[in-house]
Amino acid sequence: MTDKGEKKFVIPHKGRISKADRQRLKGHKSCIVWFTGLSGSGKSTIAHALEEELYKRGVHTYVLDGDNVRTGLNKDLGFSEEDRRENIRRLGEVAKLFVDAGIITLVAAISPYKRDREFVRNLVEPGEFVEVYVRCPVEVCETRDPKGLYKKARQGIIKNFTGIDAPYEEPENPEILIESDKESVQNAVLKIIKFLEEKGIIPKKEE
Amino acid sequence: MTDKGEKKFVIPHKGRISKADRQRLKGHKSCIVWFTGLSGSGKSTIAHALEEELYKRGVHTYVLDGDNVRTGLNKDLGFSEEDRRENIRRLGEVAKLFVDAGIITLVAAISPYKRDREFVRNLVEPGEFVEVYVRCPVEVCETRDPKGLYKKARQGIIKNFTGIDAPYEEPENPEILIESDKESVQNAVLKIIKFLEEKGIIPKKEE
Repeated sequence: MTDKGEKKFVIPHKGRISKADRQRLKGHKSCIVWFTGLSGSGKSTIAHALEEELYKRGVHTYVLDGDNVRTGLNKDLGFSEEDRRENIRRLGEVAKLFVDAGIITLVAAISPYKRDREFVRNLVEPGEFVEVYVRCPVEVCETRDPKGLYKKARQGIIKNFTGIDAPYEEPENPEILIESDKESVQNAVLKIIKFLEEKGIIPKKEE
Repeated sequence: MTDKGEKKFVIPHKGRISKADRQRLKGHKSCIVWFTGLSGSGKSTIAHALEEELYKRGVHTYVLDGDNVRTGLNKDLGFSEEDRRENIRRLGEVAKLFVDAGIITLVAAISPYKRDREFVRNLVEPGEFVEVYVRCPVEVCETRDPKGLYKKARQGIIKNFTGIDAPYEEPENPEILIESDKESVQNAVLKIIKFLEEKGIIPKKEE
């Protein structure tokens, strides 16, 4: 018997407090808001601005930032295609746990491969995965270069850099499209809030 | 440059909403309540009963059950010593994220190795790791055998089974000791609640 073979002896334990209970305590439903886009497109900036706005409304959130998670849970992973896939798989599985906990979970990760994003979409229930494509031309991202990474990629110091020498597969039907070279962070935030309200995930703001 | 070498280009993004903010929204502090003990000692049962009691008090919780996480995030892991270590490392890193989200995070995992539990303790701030040792003689656990696993271990169908042919290293100074062969689940729950109240993690119940 191999180690993996023992998996059939792993018996999940079902708790008495459900996702619906935890959502009820928080006063809203939960979902993953998944920000995908090039480095420097504004994913983290928009996610954190959204968290701030939701916090003001008493909504329970958490930001899973690809970069932050790479210094903890995913610090054993690099940037090969395989490791990027595993990075997204784990982010997705953790986001699923947060959704189960009743939290609106904002994930900011380049997540360049379509099949990896679809994997996460299929992890959760229909409507619980809100894909936000933060679109921005690579030339604009490269001009911003907030972390100096494009420069290093151009110099060949960083290899497999998305948009330079690694592919980015655009979402075809994202729930929300943000064109971060044309619209403000505040506008992006309002657009996402409006979506969450319309889908009944968060209550409409009391006037 | 190797993949791992690119790690120095991972720059964490600091959000504007802090752990303290998220705790404020929830009305209590957050921590990890880590249940360790043999299979069948009652870790999951006590964790879920604790969650139910905390829920009644309006406390925001989540149970990370070792078995449940093994069907998702950790489904790539087996039961070798190395995989068990990685299983606990990931549970700890995820629990840390939940604590950062303001959630009282109940983790039920055999976690037989002392150094793995100490690793998790050191991941979070002092006072944020509450180790609950659910002590129960292996003979009693084997009699309970709720999942029929001891029987399979005795038959040699499961190898590396903690307490049978793999070691369990007892905690020396757990924050809380539960003797599940001598005390009731309800008593265990009250003991933990009292600890959380006394440490100021949750507010005392209004009379």
